[in-house]
Amino acid sequence: MKDQFYKYIQKLQNQITQALELIDGQAKFKEDQWEREEGGGGQSRIIENGLVIEKGGVNISAVHGPLPKSMQTYFNVGEVDFFACGLSLVIHPKNPMAPTVHANWRYFEMYDQNGNLIDQWFGGGQDLTPYYLFEEDVIHFHQQCKKACDKHHPDFYKEFKNHCDLYFYNEHRDEARGVGGLFFDYLKSDENFNIQERYDFVTEIGNVFLDAYLPLLKKRKDLPYKESHRNWQEIRRGRYVEFNLIHDRGTLFGLKTKGRIESILMSLPPHVQWRYNYVTEEGSEEQKLLNVLKNPKEWV
Amino acid sequence: MKDQFYKYIQKLQNQITQALELIDGQAKFKEDQWEREEGGGGQSRIIENGLVIEKGGVNISAVHGPLPKSMQTYFNVGEVDFFACGLSLVIHPKNPMAPTVHANWRYFEMYDQNGNLIDQWFGGGQDLTPYYLFEEDVIHFHQQCKKACDKHHPDFYKEFKNHCDLYFYNEHRDEARGVGGLFFDYLKSDENFNIQERYDFVTEIGNVFLDAYLPLLKKRKDLPYKESHRNWQEIRRGRYVEFNLIHDRGTLFGLKTKGRIESILMSLPPHVQWRYNYVTEEGSEEQKLLNVLKNPKEWV
Repeated sequence: MKDQFYKYIQKLQNQITQALELIDGQAKFKEDQWEREEGGGGQSRIIENGLVIEKGGVNISAVHGPLPKSMQTYFNVGEVDFFACGLSLVIHPKNPMAPTVHANWRYFEMYDQNGNLIDQWFGGGQDLTPYYLFEEDVIHFHQQCKKACDKHHPDFYKEFKNHCDLYFYNEHRDEARGVGGLFFDYLKSDENFNIQERYDFVTEIGNVFLDAYLPLLKKRKDLPYKESHRNWQEIRRGRYVEFNLIHDRGTLFGLKTKGRIESILMSLPPHVQWRYNYVTEEGSEEQKLLNVLKNPKEWV
Repeated sequence: MKDQFYKYIQKLQNQITQALELIDGQAKFKEDQWEREEGGGGQSRIIENGLVIEKGGVNISAVHGPLPKSMQTYFNVGEVDFFACGLSLVIHPKNPMAPTVHANWRYFEMYDQNGNLIDQWFGGGQDLTPYYLFEEDVIHFHQQCKKACDKHHPDFYKEFKNHCDLYFYNEHRDEARGVGGLFFDYLKSDENFNIQERYDFVTEIGNVFLDAYLPLLKKRKDLPYKESHRNWQEIRRGRYVEFNLIHDRGTLFGLKTKGRIESILMSLPPHVQWRYNYVTEEGSEEQKLLNVLKNPKEWV
């Protein structure tokens, strides 16, 4: 399974980076290979200062070895070995009318001291962070997510959509990071699904990513905008930073366990602002976005 | 003691904001009064878009009531009442040649269920975060800190300077946030100092702040700079954000316990950049700063 999934994310990394380079038309992804001292490593692909993409990363990694102490506590297990691989991506478009997107699909295995597999599961999801709200865009993104989910179970979309709304939430601001999508974790083999069926589901979600996101990027990348739109984008990007550095389990885990900093923090936006007590105007487009972030809604 | 110290920080807030307005010459501090539901409140004074100061806050607060659960755990005490007051300031100058400064002086009391005082202590400090290294500036700042410390105990400067280097450290980057200063906490009455002598020390440090910082701001605020200097300042400000959101106990405590967000996050810089894997040139001024941040040194 681990070879099967790793090959899948390698192929998906190629597909996604090629499609994004094509739409950008100027910038190319640069690849950094890195190795982890305790075992494994990754290929980070970063794009910066494009015509369309201001900053983005599409990274894969496969790491293994003894499970670090902090993860033993987190998973409530003893001294075991682990294998983990996944693809993580964040795309920050330049145009404030185009939404930021994040996605991650990952697979995890644990082994006892004799090397026997004792646990395995998939996790991941994808979510959208617009700066200006085009309802049709959000609906399209969620429809694509739902279509992929529905092929595997009628409850999946509802369950993983709700989980996404709960997870990508800036508690300290009482607002969502964005307009959600899907979030799932600990998808194990059980009475309903074997691990191959979990694989089929997660790869279905991975395969729908470009269909969900690219049309939005294409529609919004060349819209005209003013400095005020750009300021709002940079202020909202500040909330993105706050979520990733204060709340995101993946980011914090990576930082605390000394992962490769530059691959972990590639998620942070290129230009960001913090203004004191910034207040949006009643009835403005900015206010319209905030209303949706304060009260996550059903899109399909 | 609490009235005495609160009057002190009120006066100090006035002194500091007046001095900073004078040096800025254009922008004025705006005051926001806020109240805490469970008891107390504060006066936040914020300055933005000045000629010299791009963003800054000089805030005081005095809060009281039952000690929140999370603080009971933190201090390892049961259900007690508390009083806390303090002044917190962060100044982000516009000119990348001028350093950012942070300071905080605070006083804490705890009471049993009958309202008897069971504990009291002072804490605080001040530290400097330059973007370009002018050694004479750092030496001046530390000399002023040492001069104030030496009036109270020959070991204070060394102890609190080291504590500052340890505290304001970005573990995940293996580098200091800045070039340090002083950091102290839990200054209680003991066999050597009564609480009035602790007050005398902390107010001595508060009183030396303007002497330590203003000369640097005056010397550097009008130096010429290029876009490349400004970029470096904004990239380094990203590290400042990382420290405050990932490591700073005060910020995290405020966020997790739902303090007034805008007063807590006034510390974040106005314009910030994150670039992937930014590398400084060998022998450059940027590299010179990094060398000092990687290996905190003795300045006096």
